[in-house]
Amino acid sequence: MTELDTRIGELAAGARRAAQALRGAPGAARNKALARMADRLRTHRDAIARANALDLDAAIAAGLPAPKIDRLRLTDRVLEDLIAGLSQVAALPDPIGAVEELRTLDNGLKVGRMRIPLGVIGMIFESRPNVTVEASALTLKSGNAILLRGGSEAFHSNTCLADLFRDALAEAGLPPDAIQQVPTTDRAAIIAMCHLDEHIDVLIPRGGEGLIRFVSQHARMPVLKHDKGVCHLYVDDPADLDMARRIAVNAKAQRPGVCNALETLLVHQGVADAFLPRVARDLADAGVVLRGCPETCARIPEASPATDADWAAEYLDLILAVRVVRDMDDAMDHIARWGSRHTEAIVTTDHARAMRFLDLVDASLVLVNASTRFNDGFQLGLGAEIGISTSKIHAFGPMGLRELTTTKFVALGDGHIRT
Amino acid sequence: MTELDTRIGELAAGARRAAQALRGAPGAARNKALARMADRLRTHRDAIARANALDLDAAIAAGLPAPKIDRLRLTDRVLEDLIAGLSQVAALPDPIGAVEELRTLDNGLKVGRMRIPLGVIGMIFESRPNVTVEASALTLKSGNAILLRGGSEAFHSNTCLADLFRDALAEAGLPPDAIQQVPTTDRAAIIAMCHLDEHIDVLIPRGGEGLIRFVSQHARMPVLKHDKGVCHLYVDDPADLDMARRIAVNAKAQRPGVCNALETLLVHQGVADAFLPRVARDLADAGVVLRGCPETCARIPEASPATDADWAAEYLDLILAVRVVRDMDDAMDHIARWGSRHTEAIVTTDHARAMRFLDLVDASLVLVNASTRFNDGFQLGLGAEIGISTSKIHAFGPMGLRELTTTKFVALGDGHIRT
Repeated sequence: MTELDTRIGELAAGARRAAQALRGAPGAARNKALARMADRLRTHRDAIARANALDLDAAIAAGLPAPKIDRLRLTDRVLEDLIAGLSQVAALPDPIGAVEELRTLDNGLKVGRMRIPLGVIGMIFESRPNVTVEASALTLKSGNAILLRGGSEAFHSNTCLADLFRDALAEAGLPPDAIQQVPTTDRAAIIAMCHLDEHIDVLIPRGGEGLIRFVSQHARMPVLKHDKGVCHLYVDDPADLDMARRIAVNAKAQRPGVCNALETLLVHQGVADAFLPRVARDLADAGVVLRGCPETCARIPEASPATDADWAAEYLDLILAVRVVRDMDDAMDHIARWGSRHTEAIVTTDHARAMRFLDLVDASLVLVNASTRFNDGFQLGLGAEIGISTSKIHAFGPMGLRELTTTKFVALGDGHIRT
Repeated sequence: MTELDTRIGELAAGARRAAQALRGAPGAARNKALARMADRLRTHRDAIARANALDLDAAIAAGLPAPKIDRLRLTDRVLEDLIAGLSQVAALPDPIGAVEELRTLDNGLKVGRMRIPLGVIGMIFESRPNVTVEASALTLKSGNAILLRGGSEAFHSNTCLADLFRDALAEAGLPPDAIQQVPTTDRAAIIAMCHLDEHIDVLIPRGGEGLIRFVSQHARMPVLKHDKGVCHLYVDDPADLDMARRIAVNAKAQRPGVCNALETLLVHQGVADAFLPRVARDLADAGVVLRGCPETCARIPEASPATDADWAAEYLDLILAVRVVRDMDDAMDHIARWGSRHTEAIVTTDHARAMRFLDLVDASLVLVNASTRFNDGFQLGLGAEIGISTSKIHAFGPMGLRELTTTKFVALGDGHIRT
């Protein structure tokens, strides 16, 4: 047990006590705290800018690539969005306390399930300081305490934001320890968190594959993974090929750097001749480079040959792997072998096949005639999102407020005993 | 990678393939397999009895205590119950394929959640061979494959039952690898299972604290713990004291060796004089020995003094710890400190306090005016149970068929792209 372990243990024990205190706090108190958090962001822009500048200077000095530096930057526009987000979260219905499925059993015992917070969330993330705001808002709204461990690049920004939020909690009469930031970016702090199953109920890692694997291997509590997306679009025969082209270009090129972007296009052999040259032109216009199977390359001279590494790749870039398949079963076999259970889509006009694809494909979101880019809590109507789970347990897909809760059973009797 | 690791890895990969094949199998095929499984138990009594005799002989030779030997025994009565259980599970509604909360978003995209199997369940359990039958039935009904690793005491019985079920699956046209028994009781097999997160979606350990801790520490996938129950009954002031006595005796003595049995009785100081001597007599009549706080011992001369070890104890025996508390908050503090989040009950006539206890107590089942013994899937109306989860993630409390499933999002569009 190192000194660091002890420190993290104390933070987590404080989070546990805060979570216990939050159980008695009504939704109005949690909403009041969210309003105070928004106030702090409004009135402490200078302090936030100073902390952010420290991170930006360090990032520039370290020679981080420009897109990474951009993601660190807390501009006025980013702050306005975060403030608006806090108000939106406050306005969502309170997920806590509802009793679902209450019914009276034959013996007269009334049994239901009451929605309750998970308790203490451990959030381990890289890069963007926005996560401190968004994750704090969602966990507080759902009655949970949060222990945040952000990446070293945003350390000063994260610390400043968490400190402001702790003041806001105190002002709203809630325990400040409901939002805590681990005061070091030492990687040993992650291991310490992974071992504190007594105080932390669930870990949510967000970041690269390495981070997620590291957390999964060390954690003694459940982990809700936000893992990579190797997403496919299968174009069936028959399909509306104009629709298929629009969806392919949108899924690949609208925002290539995110987990729900398209990585592999699968095309039924029956429409390959009609579809491939035209979609290749559209994709080229959007700046997309193609890597294809031999049948693809025969139809698209610009495509370079794909290898197994391409079928497994999450490019997060303007590159697309393309393969001609025999039929839908061949496409589903490809998806089962190479997919990451994230987002899978079919374009078809055949109803029975659309239903079969929906039933059989194993992914957190399966779409018919729509872009993979819809795998997002806001787009699917959850109102907010703390991540997209690729774990199947507890939550599979975008995680909103409900996914930060669980249910306990409640039973109302009149002297009931078991016979 | 040892030879054992490779063998377990092959079993798990087979389970993964079987789970994939099960996705296409309709509910009727799964029900047919359940009927064939029941047939095998009926028609192979001799083979089962021979395998069971090997386990019983070994248990007697090893000098196992009589209650443990009894739990191993597959009598005609036990087999009849298991056969009836298989029919009951077959008769439950199919949990797979239903689309919940399907709605049309503003942009016309239809979004819902489809209930799907978890995939591959790893079940690690001790002692009773019944678990092989009950767990196989529930996982198959819910479309999952199962990898069973039972205890050494029941090895021959478990192997015989699993082999019969594999034949039944084949006869019903389903993949036999959907039910597999690990062919060794080497503890290293548990570690091997814990590392196979590629093929096993969730581990369910059932057994002693040591086993559960061991699995939680090594598992790289989510674990649904079935942990110990340090269950409390709090008798409020005012309360119907006759009701409180009946509930206390039932909760403690009706079946003391199970996780939902009462372990600590908390009594409001205002009713201590009226309640304690009388409940002590009832409990003594039921053979229960008491360990009390000083205020309890002052009122019940037969009680011996309790120490902190008693407040933490899961006796699983005819022993009860008793403490007089100042008020309900004092009782809830005691429960928060010493409870195991399993089952907590209050006896009260005060409505507001009943509601407050329900809201604030953190346990998988919270009861008002009813015995802790109701924390059981059958008693709470789930129709079946694979265990009682004390993990809060995914399931908290008795786990029935629904808890062996998850949902994926489905989206039905008409060329929808993101703008």
